[in-house]
Formats: sequence, structure tokens, C-alpha cells
Amino acid sequence: MLNIEEALSDAASLALEFIRSEEEKPVAPYRTPEQLLGDLDLSLQEKGLDHDEFIQLIREVLAFTPKTCSGCFYNQLFGGRDAVATLAEILAVVINTSMYTFKAAGPHVLIEQEVVSRMCRKVGFEHGDGILCPGGSIANLLVMAVARNEAEPGLRETGHSGRPMTVYASSESHYSITKSAGVIGIGRANVRQIRTDPSGRMDVDALNRAIAEDISAGRLPVAIVATAGTTVLGAFDPVADIAEVAGEHGVWLHVDGAFGGSVLMSGEHRHLLAGSEKADSFIWNPHKMMGVPVVCSAALFRNRAHLSANLYEQAEYLFQTEDDELNPGTRSLQCGRRNDAFKLWAAWRYHGDEGYERKVQKQFALARYAADRIEADGDLALTFYPESINVCFEVAGKSSEQICQSLRERELAVIGYGVVWGHRVIRLVCLNDALSTADIDDFLATVKAIAADLPPGENDI
Amino acid sequence: MLNIEEALSDAASLALEFIRSEEEKPVAPYRTPEQLLGDLDLSLQEKGLDHDEFIQLIREVLAFTPKTCSGCFYNQLFGGRDAVATLAEILAVVINTSMYTFKAAGPHVLIEQEVVSRMCRKVGFEHGDGILCPGGSIANLLVMAVARNEAEPGLRETGHSGRPMTVYASSESHYSITKSAGVIGIGRANVRQIRTDPSGRMDVDALNRAIAEDISAGRLPVAIVATAGTTVLGAFDPVADIAEVAGEHGVWLHVDGAFGGSVLMSGEHRHLLAGSEKADSFIWNPHKMMGVPVVCSAALFRNRAHLSANLYEQAEYLFQTEDDELNPGTRSLQCGRRNDAFKLWAAWRYHGDEGYERKVQKQFALARYAADRIEADGDLALTFYPESINVCFEVAGKSSEQICQSLRERELAVIGYGVVWGHRVIRLVCLNDALSTADIDDFLATVKAIAADLPPGENDI
Repeated sequence: MLNIEEALSDAASLALEFIRSEEEKPVAPYRTPEQLLGDLDLSLQEKGLDHDEFIQLIREVLAFTPKTCSGCFYNQLFGGRDAVATLAEILAVVINTSMYTFKAAGPHVLIEQEVVSRMCRKVGFEHGDGILCPGGSIANLLVMAVARNEAEPGLRETGHSGRPMTVYASSESHYSITKSAGVIGIGRANVRQIRTDPSGRMDVDALNRAIAEDISAGRLPVAIVATAGTTVLGAFDPVADIAEVAGEHGVWLHVDGAFGGSVLMSGEHRHLLAGSEKADSFIWNPHKMMGVPVVCSAALFRNRAHLSANLYEQAEYLFQTEDDELNPGTRSLQCGRRNDAFKLWAAWRYHGDEGYERKVQKQFALARYAADRIEADGDLALTFYPESINVCFEVAGKSSEQICQSLRERELAVIGYGVVWGHRVIRLVCLNDALSTADIDDFLATVKAIAADLPPGENDI
Repeated sequence: MLNIEEALSDAASLALEFIRSEEEKPVAPYRTPEQLLGDLDLSLQEKGLDHDEFIQLIREVLAFTPKTCSGCFYNQLFGGRDAVATLAEILAVVINTSMYTFKAAGPHVLIEQEVVSRMCRKVGFEHGDGILCPGGSIANLLVMAVARNEAEPGLRETGHSGRPMTVYASSESHYSITKSAGVIGIGRANVRQIRTDPSGRMDVDALNRAIAEDISAGRLPVAIVATAGTTVLGAFDPVADIAEVAGEHGVWLHVDGAFGGSVLMSGEHRHLLAGSEKADSFIWNPHKMMGVPVVCSAALFRNRAHLSANLYEQAEYLFQTEDDELNPGTRSLQCGRRNDAFKLWAAWRYHGDEGYERKVQKQFALARYAADRIEADGDLALTFYPESINVCFEVAGKSSEQICQSLRERELAVIGYGVVWGHRVIRLVCLNDALSTADIDDFLATVKAIAADLPPGENDI
């Protein structure tokens, strides 16, 4: 049986092999699912494997694993690899901390408190509290449940009364808002999709009218969701203006900063979130622009009582030492909970605020560079001049979908498209601050070369 | 700036130091939170650290980190360390896969499908489907939301109608059932806590009466939760009998096998879950008895359409290649999702079913050994002869709470108590199959020695 020293040594060798392969070949070999199932024997069996067979199989799986940390992966709202955060996350695996109590997690509870507290102060929640969640969708779900319970006291105990409730988010908001409404029982149809301006920012007048209409129809507005960094365009809803509307109607204001929350680290760009201190809640995923391994997501609340009031359960078998304040299981959705704090804390301690400021600046600078290059190129059409780090564009007369697929099949880059005003546009997310302007040049040249090989195509839908 | 090769090398050295310290000193130094805040400078700052300062700080944090993998940690429903699963989990950190699409996750999507499919077959869901979730509480929440939506068609779209809904779980069920009822809007007070027999198994007649009463009062029963492995006693509700009641009333049957689901790996013990194939859903946490790093939790459904029907959202910016079947983001609560499949798949592939069968057998054998020793000892009182691997007992005339606290303060063991029929009892969870019967002897001798030093105490509450 493999012992832990051997396992650590094998893990280190396989990790190094993988990292070196990223440099040699930054895109994994293209295989269809059917081909992969033919190439790899993934089946679980009655009998186990010996050490050599096992290592060989792991090596084969890694060979076909998408290289999400390489310089050619632009497909998602995360990218690159932070060495310090990776180090700490590996240690988190080895110490195997579960984050419900101080008794079981010790200093890691204090570490999470420090991280949450500093994030709250960046938002402007001077006396706030929060909790790390397994991703932005679940963080949004948690916030929406809390907002709903606060809107109708007693609901947590006795259940929905049947009074129709509504949530407001822009038509460019993340799909987890609708999904969560279907899960927590508000109903998907009760999420009002508020229209946006051409650059993807919520129309505040339309929001105001929608709320007034619902109130006069007897519905109970439970939350407005302002998106800070939309998924496709990276647009920022005007939080300060929305906060006024929320204040007038007495509706909970939530800022979904899963993607864009990290602009708070930049003196130059934090104005995009002006007004966030007036929100009731804020989510922010450091696994996106701050580059820690997936997942790391904070749900932050201006009023520190809200989490416990909506999540506390008595469980003497678990919460039996120290004050509840030190037992985060009293205010998390989870019981057993992975330690997502250590990686963020370690990287933040190492880089400092100033390191993250530089990182965010670099991402914005890369995006501006890419946008300027695209604007100056007659073969390319910039969708909008980016508000943040998503650069959306088309190649004149060619299908964005086919270009993305061709880049993937030819193992040149992994990137996706989005839909903006009825057009499919290529979405270049400038998250990886290890890239240089020369890499952006190379990428755009590759896109044009691939597009040249494709037949004429349409992006209208 | 630290590069990734150095970071991997640092991580390997620090991990080895930590693992060696477990052998030398299996319990971390006891510190109060105040002392820790004095000993460690955890504060995040404007400036970062240099490499040496950083490594020194990480080393200090590790020195005070509870050793959850050591032979003296009995505090939770996880324990020990599986070398192979640790290896794969470290690689999961390095490859940084997010599990929404085949395009981003490649073979890891197929790996999760293989794991889920094999788990479904062990449960008896021949055509089932499932998804890995970040812990049992969220898996229970997901299942309860699905069951509720299925009980009242249209609810996902239009929201709760206000018709009172009820959920049934034993008084020994996990607190996540009540918590989830408060989050998804059923209401905490609508969870019926069904009484149990003295060994902690749900009273099926009482369940039947409670459902009949609610139905005649016009309430809508949406789910029965059978607990397979209660938190304190490790008791198994009689699933086959409960399935009959569920069938009679047409109510969704969910098995919460977060803790006990792994008995399905043992030919000798899987009878504890007889009838599970009749359930509608089943959750099972391999991070507990199967020993993979936290967290790893599967939510399994007999009808493979249920997940997608209750979670699917259109998101062209994400789901743009391959069929939805290969894009697990179409049927998960999360969007970005950590890769919890790889560690389980790797360990299962290495150990085979037969390895897990041995592991579960060993846990049961250790528990029986401990129970027999306690029964034979006049100073100790066994609470019940264990149905599975939790051995609950008292030391005659001494406070269980004080004994647990004293073991922790003297850095001898980390263990907790539970309440059984109004008594605080020490809960010895025999999860760590690296332990021998001699370790159990040592542990019991330590408990008796510590208790001898304590004043007389009470366990009645």
C-alpha cells in the first residue's frame, strides 16, 4: 500500500510534469468524449491497481486534462496560477481541516475571520461579517434566502405564506439568480430581468418602475441584485444609483461582485463599485481576478447578525467548546466545510494589498491593450470598449462560434463566445496577469489566421 | 516572486514536516483563540512578506493546526488520511479544474460520471444520476428543494403557493434538515421530528401517524428523510419499512447516508441499508467512512431527469459545446465547481471495491472491539451496543464534557460528546482504519486516567 511520503513524492513529480507540459503545449490534445472514453479506462472495478498501473493511469488522465492555468486558456472567469496560493491550497489538502468549529479548525477559523473582515472593510462594511462559500452561485443563493427571510419575518420558522415575492436583477445578471429563485421557492418567474443600457449596465429607471409596479400589485420585493462585472461584457451596474432606489422602497440591496468584486483592490478602478458600502450584502470570488485556486467565494453582510439569525441551529454534538462566534458552522450553509480561507489568506499575506493592486491594474491594462488593438484592426470589430477586463469582439464576416471551436480543435487556444444584443461575440477575458502584450498580439494574430481559413459565417441569432 | 517549482518544493517540505509532527505529537498544542491571536500575526496588510518571513509564518500556523488525520483525533465523522486520495487531491489543486463543462473539465466530467454511476448502482438506482456537492448539508438542501418542486408542480417557476408543506425526519437526524427547511422556505417548524426507539432508529408507526395527520389537516408532505448513520449513535433508520410508508402516502423518500452510506461497500454490513433502492434520493459522503479529503458528497437520484428538471438554466455563454449530458453545470447548484471527483475516483480505482470493503469491515471491527472492552470494564458504561462505528459511553460518576475538555487541554486526544436520552456521553468514532486494537486500549486507558483526576461530575442535562 502506498504510504504518504511516496504519495507526496509522486504528486510532486506528476505536478511538475503537468506544469512543464503547459509550457511545451499550452492546450491539451483535442478529444471528443467518445474518444476519451476509448483512450482511458476510467471504470471503477472490484479489484484495485498496483502502484505502476495507477501512476500510469493518472498520467494519462493528466495528459488530456484541459490546461486551465496556461496562457492559452481564456474560456472562463478564472485563469493563471498563483504559486503562493497553490502552495497553501496543497497544504490545506494535507492538513484536511473542516471549518465548523475552533476545536476542529483552530487558527484557520481566525484566518477566515481575518480574510472576511478585510474584505468587508474593502466593501465598506465596517461592522460586517461574512462566510466563505463554495462558489458564487451558492453565495448568491445564501444571500437571497437571508434577504427573503428578513423581508418576511417568521418565514424561516413557518415557511412561505404564499404572498408573491420578487427579485430584481439585470438581464445581464448571472444565471444563478434565477436558479436560486427556483431552489429557495421564490420562483424563477418572479425574478424581474431589468433591461440594461447598450454597455450592459442596469437601467435604474426601469428598475424603479418595476418595483413600484410590483408593490402596487401587492407583491413583496425581497432583493435587488446589482451585478458588478457581468459575465459576458464585464459591465458594472451603477451601485450608488441603485442604492437610492433600494433605500426609497426599503428593499434589500445585494451586490453580485463574484467576478468584479476584486476591483476594490485597485485605487484606480474601485470607483466602479462606488456605493457598495450602502448595500446589505456583497459576494466576491477571489478565485476569479485574485487568482487563487477554485473555489473561493465570500458572502459578506453589512449587518453581522444576519448570518447567524438565518442559519443557526443548535447541535450540541458539534458546537460544544468556545463561543459561537468562533464556530463558523453556526453561520454557514454547510456543516463539514472545506478550508477555502487558507489559500486566500496566504496569498494575500504574501502579496499584500499592493500586490493585488498591481494584479488588477495589469488585468485592466491588458484588456485596454487588447481593445485598442482590436479597434485599430480593420478585420476585427470591438463590441464595446470594455468597462473592465472582458474584451468582446468579432471577426468581420466570420462565425465567432466556429472560430472558438476551431481554436480548440486545432489546440491553439480555449476561449468561448457570448451573446451581446443578438450577436455572438468572442469573449477575451484578460485574467491571467502572467501574459504580456506580445501574448495578446499573438492571440489576435492566431484568431485572424484561423478565421481566414473558415468560410464566411454569421453571428446574428 | 515565488515561482511554481519553488512553491511545489516548499509545499512538499512543509507537508512532510506536518506529517512527521503528527507521529511525534498527534495532538496540536492547546491554545485558546486569544492565545493564538497573540502567538500568530494573522493580519493582512498593505505590504506583503518576503519568502523567508512567509514560510516561517506558514510553519507557525501549521504548528497550531489541529491534527485531524492523526490517530488521536476522534472528534468528527472523518479521520485518518488516505495517501492515494491525498495524492489525487493535490493534483486537483494543480490542474485547477472547474466542473461545469466538458470543454473546461474534459476527462474529469467522465470521471465524475463514473463515480456517480457506481455509487448509484451500489444504492440500487440502476438508471439513476447524481452530482457531487460541497458537503452533506448542501446535498440535503438540494434534495429537499427537488422533492418539494416535484411535490408541487409549478413551484419552481411561480414560487410557493402558501400551502403548508412538511418534511419528516427522526429526532436524531442531522441539523441540516431543519436548516435547509429554513433556507428553501418550507419553514423549520414544518420539519416533524419523529421519535426514535432507544437505539436511535426512527419509529415507523409514529412516522405513519404524523403523515396521516398532516394530510388530513391539508398539509402537503414533501419528503421523508431516513437517516443512515445518525450523528451521535451511528444508528440506521429502517429504510425498507419507511419505504412502505412513503409508498402508501406517495411521499418522496430521501436517505441521508452522508455518514453511513459507505456501508454499501461491505457485503457484511450493507443490510443496514436494505430497501435503499426504493428511495427517490440518497446522499453519501465519501469524505467520511471512505476517507478521502474533505469535502466529497454525492447527491444521487433514482430518476435521472430530476436534477436537470430542477436546476437547468440556459446560459449560452457557458454551455456552448457538447451535449448537456456532458456539461454537469446544467444539473448542479453551483456554476464554478471544485473537482471533488478526482480524489474519490483515484482512490477507488487504486483500492478497488475490495479495498473499501476491507476498510469498512475494519472500522466496524474496531468499534465492536471498543464496545466489548467498555462493556467489560466496570468503570465504564456503554450507552448502547453500536449498530455501526460510533461507540458512545460514560465514565461512571464523571462528566463526559470535562473529560473531553481535559483530553484536549492536556493534548492527549481530540474527541467530543453527544447527548443520548438526556445524558452526555463520550462519542468514540472508529473511522481511522490505521488504528489497531492496541490504540483503542491506549485510548480507553487514557480516558480512565484523565477521569480519575477529575472531581465527581454529572452527565444528566
